[in-house]
Amino acid sequence: MREIARGWRADACAIGLVPTMGALHAGHMSLVEAACRENDRVVVSVFVNPIQFGAGEDLGRYPRSPEHDLAMLRAAGVDAIYKPSVTDMYPPGSSTRVNVHGITDILEGAARPGHFEGVATVVTKLFAATSPDRAYFGQKDAQQVAVVKRLAADIDLGVEIRVCPTVREADGLALSSRNAYLDAAERQAAVCLSRALGLAAEAYGRGERNPARLQAILSEAIEAEPLARLEYAEVVDPATFAAGGSLAVLAILIGKTRLIDNHDLKLPYPG
Amino acid sequence: MREIARGWRADACAIGLVPTMGALHAGHMSLVEAACRENDRVVVSVFVNPIQFGAGEDLGRYPRSPEHDLAMLRAAGVDAIYKPSVTDMYPPGSSTRVNVHGITDILEGAARPGHFEGVATVVTKLFAATSPDRAYFGQKDAQQVAVVKRLAADIDLGVEIRVCPTVREADGLALSSRNAYLDAAERQAAVCLSRALGLAAEAYGRGERNPARLQAILSEAIEAEPLARLEYAEVVDPATFAAGGSLAVLAILIGKTRLIDNHDLKLPYPG
Repeated sequence: MREIARGWRADACAIGLVPTMGALHAGHMSLVEAACRENDRVVVSVFVNPIQFGAGEDLGRYPRSPEHDLAMLRAAGVDAIYKPSVTDMYPPGSSTRVNVHGITDILEGAARPGHFEGVATVVTKLFAATSPDRAYFGQKDAQQVAVVKRLAADIDLGVEIRVCPTVREADGLALSSRNAYLDAAERQAAVCLSRALGLAAEAYGRGERNPARLQAILSEAIEAEPLARLEYAEVVDPATFAAGGSLAVLAILIGKTRLIDNHDLKLPYPG
Repeated sequence: MREIARGWRADACAIGLVPTMGALHAGHMSLVEAACRENDRVVVSVFVNPIQFGAGEDLGRYPRSPEHDLAMLRAAGVDAIYKPSVTDMYPPGSSTRVNVHGITDILEGAARPGHFEGVATVVTKLFAATSPDRAYFGQKDAQQVAVVKRLAADIDLGVEIRVCPTVREADGLALSSRNAYLDAAERQAAVCLSRALGLAAEAYGRGERNPARLQAILSEAIEAEPLARLEYAEVVDPATFAAGGSLAVLAILIGKTRLIDNHDLKLPYPG
């Protein structure tokens, strides 16, 4: 992969990278389309990164659809699909880990210890392998976006982080590979996430700025759904995830499925 | 720096990087000479990396000789000198750190908590800035060599780690910028390091393989010097620093000056 990317670079081609864990949906494909629009060459990595899953998380049953993914990426006309094996990425004896401190200690970082270390390490390695000019991430994983932006600035490989809007189902549910875990009743219940964000955005639009009241609106909308259990509802700064910004972030459990969503309350809610 | 290096790479030039903290001596210059021999373009970084110094270490008084360094590097004909400021390297808000686990917990890592995190972080950033084909390190810092080799393999930026032999004074003392801290009596006492390594190599040459006995030879040679205080004397594997290899490693204090040295006992001692 590194040799291919270096060849592209020698030909003065701008390189776009879309890192994925496969199980591709329209959210991923919106990243691929943006990458194809903005670069001469596009590589999509497909790697279910074991070190970003905690003990007891869903690594083993994480959805995999290699043939579907391949067909989608071929149809999109990407220039390379990078599918390393786990031992390509983490050979025996490998022991290097990358940490972005501060922002990784809270919310998703607190709920999933080691998760962002796994993300930062694999993203560093993917940047090293593909030397992209631009790398594409979905706003759906808002804290991951903040971690990766900080990482890219700090390691300073010259990669611009491009963030694409969350793609949603007609009823507002954010696309996620993990939505496949939901049964019909859970799928219906999951719309409480986008409903909560919509209610908070509405209140913000009416001038509500009190973080406690915005959080209460979020929590109450989740608690109104009997199948959902709230993990956190916060309004934070989108870059640092410190309290007191305008980014509403939510994590809930529906059955055994953990779902997250977010929305910048400054923007009109798209639903 | 990144743009210059990318220009070189676009011209298909092989790039050599020599990372230094300045205060250049003949040991550094042997790395520069090797880099010039083996690459089309050579960049020498000069950066006293604050995050690899612990609290109470010698960051503030670390020797600095910018004009001397510049003259040496000009005379050697290097293509670029990369001298980032501390805020270039670590801007406000930066929070990313790279860790090579395992090997960094022992010996130098145990004696200097955070030291190898600082080294791994700055080396990753220097690799990102200069995209070298080869990077040059001195065998004098044997554990740093092992850490950087592991790091380079794990992050996988395509950098080959080249290791050059320790350069010594006529009496055997390994060149080190920190030798400048020694007064005349301490300077004489410091030769106990190379004397100890020579005695251990001699015993190894006679067939001695018992690690405890080799370590005793090292310790006794240090303890025979009244001005020296032994910090550690071990015989380890040069790649993993696990016990039981043939690399003798030593750390001592002479007055307030901490000195390290090492020798692979399989090789004849050069003194």
